[in-house]
Amino acid sequence: MSDTQKLAERLLAGERRALARAITLIESAREDHRATARELLERLGRSGRQAVRIGLSGTPGVGKSTFIEAFGMMLTGQGLRVAVLAVDPSSARTGGSILGDKTRMERLSRDPNAFIRPSPSQTHLGGVARRTREAVSLCEASGFDVVLIETVGVGQSETVVAEMCDLFLLLLAPAGGDELQGVKRGIMEMADLILVNKADGDLKPAATRTCSDYAGALRLMRKRPNDPDGFPKALMVSALHEEGLRTAWEEMHALINWRRENGHFDQRRQIQAQYWFEQEVRQGLLSRLETAEAREAMARAAEDVSSGRKTPTAAAGEVLGALKYE
Amino acid sequence: MSDTQKLAERLLAGERRALARAITLIESAREDHRATARELLERLGRSGRQAVRIGLSGTPGVGKSTFIEAFGMMLTGQGLRVAVLAVDPSSARTGGSILGDKTRMERLSRDPNAFIRPSPSQTHLGGVARRTREAVSLCEASGFDVVLIETVGVGQSETVVAEMCDLFLLLLAPAGGDELQGVKRGIMEMADLILVNKADGDLKPAATRTCSDYAGALRLMRKRPNDPDGFPKALMVSALHEEGLRTAWEEMHALINWRRENGHFDQRRQIQAQYWFEQEVRQGLLSRLETAEAREAMARAAEDVSSGRKTPTAAAGEVLGALKYE
Repeated sequence: MSDTQKLAERLLAGERRALARAITLIESAREDHRATARELLERLGRSGRQAVRIGLSGTPGVGKSTFIEAFGMMLTGQGLRVAVLAVDPSSARTGGSILGDKTRMERLSRDPNAFIRPSPSQTHLGGVARRTREAVSLCEASGFDVVLIETVGVGQSETVVAEMCDLFLLLLAPAGGDELQGVKRGIMEMADLILVNKADGDLKPAATRTCSDYAGALRLMRKRPNDPDGFPKALMVSALHEEGLRTAWEEMHALINWRRENGHFDQRRQIQAQYWFEQEVRQGLLSRLETAEAREAMARAAEDVSSGRKTPTAAAGEVLGALKYE
Repeated sequence: MSDTQKLAERLLAGERRALARAITLIESAREDHRATARELLERLGRSGRQAVRIGLSGTPGVGKSTFIEAFGMMLTGQGLRVAVLAVDPSSARTGGSILGDKTRMERLSRDPNAFIRPSPSQTHLGGVARRTREAVSLCEASGFDVVLIETVGVGQSETVVAEMCDLFLLLLAPAGGDELQGVKRGIMEMADLILVNKADGDLKPAATRTCSDYAGALRLMRKRPNDPDGFPKALMVSALHEEGLRTAWEEMHALINWRRENGHFDQRRQIQAQYWFEQEVRQGLLSRLETAEAREAMARAAEDVSSGRKTPTAAAGEVLGALKYE
């Protein structure tokens, strides 16, 4: 039995160290690691296991870690296995968050039914996206019931996460009435469930108001043809006091079940798979510009363009001609 | 003398019909036309003639056509030759605006010192961008002093226009005080001059208020290192009554001269040329997905991905492998 085969079997048996090792292979830049990772993914792709993939977005300060910890503990308390992955383009810049994810979620990280993995550090969001998608597949093969994919509310990372999830949650903090516009419309439109966190203590009245503001805003939005009545929904939770989490999970479950029964669940995954396939082809083509030779040719041509010796079109034509038979 | 050479000489002599013919060659999808167009552009690229390229954005209803007509007539009245081009991605969908550009600007279209050309109809904004850029070069070679590039306030077309202009104008209509947020921040940041149109009759007070609101908003924005004090600026104009146009033109002139004297004018054009060069290379690579064979291979692979027979990564790898030695 080859090493890859052994790793696959340990992973299928639910061994967390095998999963961690497999994700490390996926994240590696070494070509031999990538080859092993590809073999592993092909092997495990036929496991037929499926988790509920939940995307979670929220800007810093809304209590995302506290929520994930409390929500995750509630799920493992119900006997479910929970994996937490992150898509954080900023970690590419800083080389990881100052407090590691495991420190942020201390109780959950010690739970044998939970698995936490920080964001792969990559300069390109495209690279982070592929590695996270592959990590999700590995978690599914490893028998996790729920995969939470966390992202901070920056740039395009929400779109990336929404395209790999069955369900998208937006976590918000209580706010003044006029702050509703702070959330980008595009992100609100992605959300299946808006959770207003910190609905406890002094902030309870503000949370109630914020929740009803968002409920109103959601009602004004276009009805989605693939969703049951009442969705998307806004709910209050208190991650700190562990309140509202069960209700939130029940709502998620109801939506997922409805989509499964109506064929929308599988359909959505199929559309997502096609989307990622097209993205990979495009990125693969554009990656030809990343080789040392291509970079050099581009730099030389850019010089000719900048000095006016060549038009952008002529210079581009030459570079493309040179790349053609590489 | 070849036909292309003859066309080039007529165009250099300022013949409008030659210019129109050359733009038609540029817009053509026929490969022989494209080859002639490329030859023409190379030949004319060395004319050394330069126009002031002015981008103009404004959503429907702000009076863009009236403004272009009045502003253009004012310029030709000063002895300047004016070309008007359009970047309108929507015309790709509708097959051109209902009222042609010449009907919208009746007086200007009859002026022998003006040249009006509607947006090339293309499905891709990238295609429209290249053709418009090439048309700008032709207009410059043909001796125009000012090239106005008009766009409607939709999607990415502003960015495209701003990247081919020396100066970017944003035309607005008078509005209620709370409507200021309707203009996207990104578009405001591109503008060198905000012109509040319809500053006449009943709307004069609203125009005054809107203008001062925007002047305030512009002051709050980051100072641009390459601009003189006071820019970007907000001004009032009435295209209908032909008021404020001369002042607006003087402000544009002052900014352009300042940039010329400080080397920023040429520097900006160099950076733009490099930008377009890179865009063309990227688009050229991605265009390999547009051939009949590639489309077929993509469709087949997408089917395999959708049915779960292949992972997105594996399918993308196969398509990329097949494209490699095409």
